Amino acid sequence: MSDRPVAVILAAGRGTRMKSRLAKVLHPLCGMPMVGWVVSATESAGAEPVLVLHHQEEAVRAAFPTCRAVRQEQPQGTGDAARSAVATFPEDGPVLVLAGDTPLLRPETLRSLLEAHGDALCTVLTARVTEPGAYGRIVRGADGTVERIVEAANASTEELAIDEINTGVYCFDAAWLRDAALPSLAPNPPKNEYYLTDVIAAAASPGPPWGRERPLRALVHHDASETMGVNDRWALAQAEAVLQSRILHAHASEGVTFQQPATTRVECGVTLGKDVTVGPGVCLLGQTTIGDDVKIDAHSVLNNAKIDDGVWIRAFSHCEDAVVGSKATIGPYARLRPGAVLEQGVRVGNFVEVKKSLLEAFATVGHLTYIGDARIGARSNIGAGTITCNYDGVAKNHTDIGADAFIGSNTALVAPVAVGDGAIVGAGSVVVTDVPANAIAVARGDQSVKEDAAQRYRDRLAAKKAEDDGAGG
Amino acid sequence: MSDRPVAVILAAGRGTRMKSRLAKVLHPLCGMPMVGWVVSATESAGAEPVLVLHHQEEAVRAAFPTCRAVRQEQPQGTGDAARSAVATFPEDGPVLVLAGDTPLLRPETLRSLLEAHGDALCTVLTARVTEPGAYGRIVRGADGTVERIVEAANASTEELAIDEINTGVYCFDAAWLRDAALPSLAPNPPKNEYYLTDVIAAAASPGPPWGRERPLRALVHHDASETMGVNDRWALAQAEAVLQSRILHAHASEGVTFQQPATTRVECGVTLGKDVTVGPGVCLLGQTTIGDDVKIDAHSVLNNAKIDDGVWIRAFSHCEDAVVGSKATIGPYARLRPGAVLEQGVRVGNFVEVKKSLLEAFATVGHLTYIGDARIGARSNIGAGTITCNYDGVAKNHTDIGADAFIGSNTALVAPVAVGDGAIVGAGSVVVTDVPANAIAVARGDQSVKEDAAQRYRDRLAAKKAEDDGAGG
Amino acid sequence: MSDRPVAVILAAGRGTRMKSRLAKVLHPLCGMPMVGWVVSATESAGAEPVLVLHHQEEAVRAAFPTCRAVRQEQPQGTGDAARSAVATFPEDGPVLVLAGDTPLLRPETLRSLLEAHGDALCTVLTARVTEPGAYGRIVRGADGTVERIVEAANASTEELAIDEINTGVYCFDAAWLRDAALPSLAPNPPKNEYYLTDVIAAAASPGPPWGRERPLRALVHHDASETMGVNDRWALAQAEAVLQSRILHAHASEGVTFQQPATTRVECGVTLGKDVTVGPGVCLLGQTTIGDDVKIDAHSVLNNAKIDDGVWIRAFSHCEDAVVGSKATIGPYARLRPGAVLEQGVRVGNFVEVKKSLLEAFATVGHLTYIGDARIGARSNIGAGTITCNYDGVAKNHTDIGADAFIGSNTALVAPVAVGDGAIVGAGSVVVTDVPANAIAVARGDQSVKEDAAQRYRDRLAAKKAEDDGAGG
Repeated sequence: MSDRPVAVILAAGRGTRMKSRLAKVLHPLCGMPMVGWVVSATESAGAEPVLVLHHQEEAVRAAFPTCRAVRQEQPQGTGDAARSAVATFPEDGPVLVLAGDTPLLRPETLRSLLEAHGDALCTVLTARVTEPGAYGRIVRGADGTVERIVEAANASTEELAIDEINTGVYCFDAAWLRDAALPSLAPNPPKNEYYLTDVIAAAASPGPPWGRERPLRALVHHDASETMGVNDRWALAQAEAVLQSRILHAHASEGVTFQQPATTRVECGVTLGKDVTVGPGVCLLGQTTIGDDVKIDAHSVLNNAKIDDGVWIRAFSHCEDAVVGSKATIGPYARLRPGAVLEQGVRVGNFVEVKKSLLEAFATVGHLTYIGDARIGARSNIGAGTITCNYDGVAKNHTDIGADAFIGSNTALVAPVAVGDGAIVGAGSVVVTDVPANAIAVARGDQSVKEDAAQRYRDRLAAKKAEDDGAGG
Repeated sequence: MSDRPVAVILAAGRGTRMKSRLAKVLHPLCGMPMVGWVVSATESAGAEPVLVLHHQEEAVRAAFPTCRAVRQEQPQGTGDAARSAVATFPEDGPVLVLAGDTPLLRPETLRSLLEAHGDALCTVLTARVTEPGAYGRIVRGADGTVERIVEAANASTEELAIDEINTGVYCFDAAWLRDAALPSLAPNPPKNEYYLTDVIAAAASPGPPWGRERPLRALVHHDASETMGVNDRWALAQAEAVLQSRILHAHASEGVTFQQPATTRVECGVTLGKDVTVGPGVCLLGQTTIGDDVKIDAHSVLNNAKIDDGVWIRAFSHCEDAVVGSKATIGPYARLRPGAVLEQGVRVGNFVEVKKSLLEAFATVGHLTYIGDARIGARSNIGAGTITCNYDGVAKNHTDIGADAFIGSNTALVAPVAVGDGAIVGAGSVVVTDVPANAIAVARGDQSVKEDAAQRYRDRLAAKKAEDDGAGG
Repeated sequence: MSDRPVAVILAAGRGTRMKSRLAKVLHPLCGMPMVGWVVSATESAGAEPVLVLHHQEEAVRAAFPTCRAVRQEQPQGTGDAARSAVATFPEDGPVLVLAGDTPLLRPETLRSLLEAHGDALCTVLTARVTEPGAYGRIVRGADGTVERIVEAANASTEELAIDEINTGVYCFDAAWLRDAALPSLAPNPPKNEYYLTDVIAAAASPGPPWGRERPLRALVHHDASETMGVNDRWALAQAEAVLQSRILHAHASEGVTFQQPATTRVECGVTLGKDVTVGPGVCLLGQTTIGDDVKIDAHSVLNNAKIDDGVWIRAFSHCEDAVVGSKATIGPYARLRPGAVLEQGVRVGNFVEVKKSLLEAFATVGHLTYIGDARIGARSNIGAGTITCNYDGVAKNHTDIGADAFIGSNTALVAPVAVGDGAIVGAGSVVVTDVPANAIAVARGDQSVKEDAAQRYRDRLAAKKAEDDGAGG
């Protein structure tokens, strides 16, 4: 008997109703491909996932490089899919079989199924629903034991009235499935496909050496929505909403306030500290980590951001692959691009972009500024409208600003260039050569004034415009 | 018999409970005035809509210039409204009558009503509801045939218990309604209004030449919410939510992923390609068209935008009456104003505004820039903080930048001005005269440095501040 | 008998399941601490709230400085809490007792409870629920009178099946509670706490001088959700959603259109005029007041803003403690910071920040500009990329721009500085001295051009880059 039961995940289909070039099971859900949720659930339930693949096989393998996978050569139904995976079965013990498009299935449910299975030949997870629709019906005998599963298409009126349905999640005795059930499956017209549901009838009347004493069981699950198959984009959106609700609920239980959870997006890889407040419309994506006492205001988007304790992210901020130190304040409308590293107490204000730059402790970049490929020293103040001219048309160059420096507004720093500790740069300067520490640098034109010239100038412009408009007409 | 049945749409009312200066039926819903949904449903059902108007008649006519409309001189109830439209009735055949404030009614329902109508004198659309409340009740005889409609205000306790209600949607025999039913209507106290519901009782016992053999029918509709009348702003918001859900569902069925549909707004005139992903909070308005494989990130707003295949619209972008070529990347925080035309592969970055300008293929405008009334040639790079100074206080002037040009950061281009192909403009320049192709232009002050002057300057400022603060106190 | 009944609000607990450093009752809900909703409901019902405090007593007192409060020395159960407040009871008449974590309770419900109470000794507010769970059950006698409340933990199987639960809201006869019921309470194992529910049994069989003729009553409330206790952050979010819905519904009834109410946040202190349209994702916070005919586009955030009639707030705007005059247009991406005052007809465009400044009537600040500590005169036009350099590293200085002035794009105004009425400043200027009225000022470098130099320059850069890359490798 193997250490872990195998969980065969049927993921070979194209998913035509998704109307997509991307294979159905690869469509993202809360930051992970759909089938990743199934893989993860089986692992959490203590099983070893085995993906059965065909359509876009390589893409799925690439998305789950550490997961075992087998190829279903010619997709011929669920029975054929299970057969493709027999080489991965343990000698004996249980084998789970489930669909790759049921991302809402919980690990607890799979664990319950494994427990209920015991020494049965087959245990099917069922659910009672008010609208059984197209689902297969569970037909039970007079004594309540499961006899078979009948597809809706083949069901009698009486059978259609049955409200217990097949969820498509099974647990099998590995040896029986491999050695008896799968080999005896016959193809079904019109497509000559092999159905796993046919195995159930076989389990109800197994021949030697298995016999009736190893029963066919059914575990009735309380929550039919958990086994919802995602077949189109609307179902995808519904599944996303359920998973989002679970993710947010879990964070809330640990001390996070979501002001408007229905508008918030938190992907599965995100971690959040205590006493975090998340405003409306906030998106926390990728591997974002948030410390304690962080406030994230409305509509901000964080992707793979690392935010330390006590930070305030103001509205409309956008941070990707950036690091923000404790008690820093960001935004509103701050954009931190990959490689932005802000130390403690830094303030980055509105319409400011920071890329691949280090802002040392308590530096301030308040308004309408681009900082790229730069270091800003501790406590330095960068005036509004400052631009680090890092790109010369060919290469990116570095700007280095020391500690306690003051860069006047509307300054262009033409990199490579350095401004020393404590230096001052006058407003409107174009800094092309290094500024020594404690120096004052000014690089701008002189001011000339023509008294009483404005009206004459306006008259001239108006005359020209009249002429142009006349010519245009 | 006319080609199309007439559909009389009652749209004369003010809608007091909307508390608005705008007539109720003109309140917008998902990008169309409320009554437009009714007009559209009747047209889709094969009928010819006729608007019955009084309040803000001219505004409604202006909103639907191609739709027939009649004036209800003195609004005196639904019977009077129908009477206002008799001149538009066909000689015989069916006439639909419905309210202009029921935007959720589906064309299929009207088609079913027309079919059910057959040779009846009158067919009323009814619904069974759990809380009949103030709705008129359908009173049926022992044999199940409809006898009359009783208003809730006039109903007996027994009648109030009836759960089948009048939806206010009717199909009439045109000749009977015009020649027999409407002329015989009597005014009802206290307001001396004529009620269309009184016609029903007349249909139950019609005189010659119509007789009992042409029956009164009722079609029980499965979805009572479809005939919800919008009487206040809360109902308006609810109707909007239902229509939004229908619109999004239809797009999802065709291959669009909505990451968070409850936060997304897609108006009725929008078209979307395959494998489009729409992030949380996105608004797609007006006649926006989106190609295949487009990704629209969180909170972006597009209005009458035309977006080609493979474009990436990043978060917080705002595009109005703009065109974006294939594989372009926009945002985050990019604003494309009317007349912005971006060719393929263009990149427009954060805090950039483009107005009435052509950006040729693969041009890049990365940061904090205003491009107005300009052409940017192919592959040109516009540095951060560049401003096209298009307005001289009187007229708007044009900036022309050739292909493969490089505009250094923080440059002001004082229009009218041209920069030739392959030219370079130094950072921080104020360009006032044309730059020839392949030239380098620089227009900025020289840099002067005062060594060790910073501390003295700071001391002077601090002393002045202390003096000012003292004076202020 | 006192003028107003006292309402004892139990607010001493820590709220461990909130997992917060902040006391549970201080967690904000729609712009007010949670317990503030209870305080407000009791006041609206005509009662005088008395807070019973222990955990973070001082913080709660500070949040409600005008509200009476008493200290519960050693929290020992609800009975002990009520005992802490006896000094505030009126001589006779009714006393309400309720929990500080039930923010959804409506004033109408408390008024109904006071009315139902009449001359009873005790009236308990109950509710019928489908899942009574952990709530105390109301045990009634054969004649329907309330006999006692049994905690779920102590209930028999029969009692657990009772669907009428204790909401924890009570009305007591003040004299009886003070003089008879509370003194006779006995501590309950294992924590030796005093339970207010034990008082109910006492009321069912009161001794002299109260007697059975002053009955124990129960008022069955129709809406069990109203008395939901907020014990964790998920419940907090649910309570927020209910309160939001109430707030939005009330505004809608008065003539406000919410395009997508589920995405909108309107705090309790906000006032809104008629024919206001609120787009998706909009947040209206604090004491914001909005006039008539205002349009607020998607995702804008307003906090303590005062917006006059006919204003258009475009998407992604952010206004705090700012005033906007009639028919002004703001945004998209406009940021008004505290002290921004815009007179009528002002236009503030994208990526513009205004702080502590007066913009007089019809002034225009279109793009990428920072206006801080300034006055902009009427009808003046501020070009794109203009920066008021208000900070010199030590103090904030003032910029004064007269009426009808024209500030060319990319201009830096080094404060303190003044530009007179009708003056013109050339684009790209750094203005360091005052500009007289009607003068033209230009302060920039001259333009030099090197013909055909661009390719040589590019070659040089490329060679250097190759060298650097080689050295780096």
